[in-house]
Amino acid sequence: MINKLIEKIQKTHAPIVVGLDPMLNYVPEHIQKRAFAEYGETLEGAAEAIWQFNKEIVDATYDLIPAVKPQVAMYEQFGIEGVKAFKKTVDYCHEKGLVVIGDVKRGDIGSTSEAYAVGHLGKVKVGSQQFAGFDEDFATVNPYLGSDGIKPFIKVCKEENKGLFILVKTSNPSSGEFQDRLIDGRPLYEWVGEQVDAWGKEHMGDSYSYIGAVVGATYPEQGKVLRKLMPKTFILVPGYGAQGGRGKDLVHFFNEDGLGAIINSSRGIIAAYKQEAYAQFGSQNFAEASRQAVKDMIADIDGALQAAK
Amino acid sequence: MINKLIEKIQKTHAPIVVGLDPMLNYVPEHIQKRAFAEYGETLEGAAEAIWQFNKEIVDATYDLIPAVKPQVAMYEQFGIEGVKAFKKTVDYCHEKGLVVIGDVKRGDIGSTSEAYAVGHLGKVKVGSQQFAGFDEDFATVNPYLGSDGIKPFIKVCKEENKGLFILVKTSNPSSGEFQDRLIDGRPLYEWVGEQVDAWGKEHMGDSYSYIGAVVGATYPEQGKVLRKLMPKTFILVPGYGAQGGRGKDLVHFFNEDGLGAIINSSRGIIAAYKQEAYAQFGSQNFAEASRQAVKDMIADIDGALQAAK
Repeated sequence: MINKLIEKIQKTHAPIVVGLDPMLNYVPEHIQKRAFAEYGETLEGAAEAIWQFNKEIVDATYDLIPAVKPQVAMYEQFGIEGVKAFKKTVDYCHEKGLVVIGDVKRGDIGSTSEAYAVGHLGKVKVGSQQFAGFDEDFATVNPYLGSDGIKPFIKVCKEENKGLFILVKTSNPSSGEFQDRLIDGRPLYEWVGEQVDAWGKEHMGDSYSYIGAVVGATYPEQGKVLRKLMPKTFILVPGYGAQGGRGKDLVHFFNEDGLGAIINSSRGIIAAYKQEAYAQFGSQNFAEASRQAVKDMIADIDGALQAAK
Repeated sequence: MINKLIEKIQKTHAPIVVGLDPMLNYVPEHIQKRAFAEYGETLEGAAEAIWQFNKEIVDATYDLIPAVKPQVAMYEQFGIEGVKAFKKTVDYCHEKGLVVIGDVKRGDIGSTSEAYAVGHLGKVKVGSQQFAGFDEDFATVNPYLGSDGIKPFIKVCKEENKGLFILVKTSNPSSGEFQDRLIDGRPLYEWVGEQVDAWGKEHMGDSYSYIGAVVGATYPEQGKVLRKLMPKTFILVPGYGAQGGRGKDLVHFFNEDGLGAIINSSRGIIAAYKQEAYAQFGSQNFAEASRQAVKDMIADIDGALQAAK
């Protein structure tokens, strides 16, 4: 799957991923109204609204981008109906040929991690049959429980040709509280990064490993160090735009081959129509605003990569 | 909710929680057959089988225990149908008066953690209405992202009178890979424990905080240290039985008031009928085997607590 992701990045010239993290207040009123008219102000109505919102954004952007990253929390908040909208979104993005990174940040002890891995990336056995539960292509994983929490995910990835992005250094302000603490003179995130690199080397695609890392755009200096520490690791970089990162700050997340990183923007794309820069589209044309924001993001990152050459 | 949990522990004399983590191969064949006859060998059939299995175990044990801990991974592996069985289980346990600890190990950056918190412990707004998505009483949370990943959970707990158990030292063999690394001479888990204690002191029930910790039964020495480091923190202790812990190893997780810890057993209870010690019940009477295993666990822990007095 890492090979497919790289192929699609090369084809689109867009090392970016659109974060499908719909808050209900991002969804334009006309879509909410239509959904509520059909299903009422219910969890079903909310799920329908975010699904319709996602669908229009995917329709308006899928030809420009290699991948999407739905954040499952935004769906889980609407209970079972929300989880159904998550699955519908994953399936629809697959129909459109997109790589789907399930931002699920799961992680547990062995047999439990295996159940998560099976549910999100693999197939579960039921009697003589087997079924894919959610069927994302990649999943994000939390490393706090150590390697026996990670290995079941790797096993499923190997069997199913899927991939992981393991949290190394997250984009939020307090990520340093534990991740930056020094252990034998080096921050915890470097030790985690080193471990991700070791797992990755044993699980290679053609040029990069299918065991990737998450490193926040908001920490470009740390990104520089981690890039060198994990040369064959694809880095998923959240925090572009709304959280503060910009193209020029992100060139060090890439290798000299122009690959090795994929930059996520969520709110900056899906709620673009709410920004001054895209206000002229109006809320009726929110998806067109998202398309323009994708184009601008690609130009920003591509420009920065060209300038750094 | 911590007050309710303590009240129920005192009433049942059982500082234990039954982990409802159903693997399909724990479910006796007669239940699987009945479910598959109705729904086929499908995800729906599997979900029905684990729900019926849970229901019988809850019916056979609810009067003996204060709480259950469904592990959401075991449900997510069956996709949407599995998640429905999770919700059904949560609701049924509430009907039976049990405290429900959602073992979800979620954790993300601010707004995303908020969505998880809302979905699992709180209520989400939809237009002028609000709805509980999954409505557990406690949730387990991963601390790797630091305090801005935790605070949204705490906020929802405060509003909704719910609680958390934050991972400090997990029960699995490789938990030490990162959690035991020394920072300024002390292992990471102690730093996390200290932080849990600090969050907890600001969020007190009557005698204990509603911000609890997870510390594995398999690490009794570390449990001893953490017990002292977090005197007002309730500790959820997984790893009893199947993972190796026994009552006499666990007395140090408790305070002198006989409270402060709740010991989880999953497989040891729900799949008791598969153990030699309970084989005489037979698979038809699996729930009675679970009831006996609960009684034996309570006696083991209560005996150890009495002996330690």
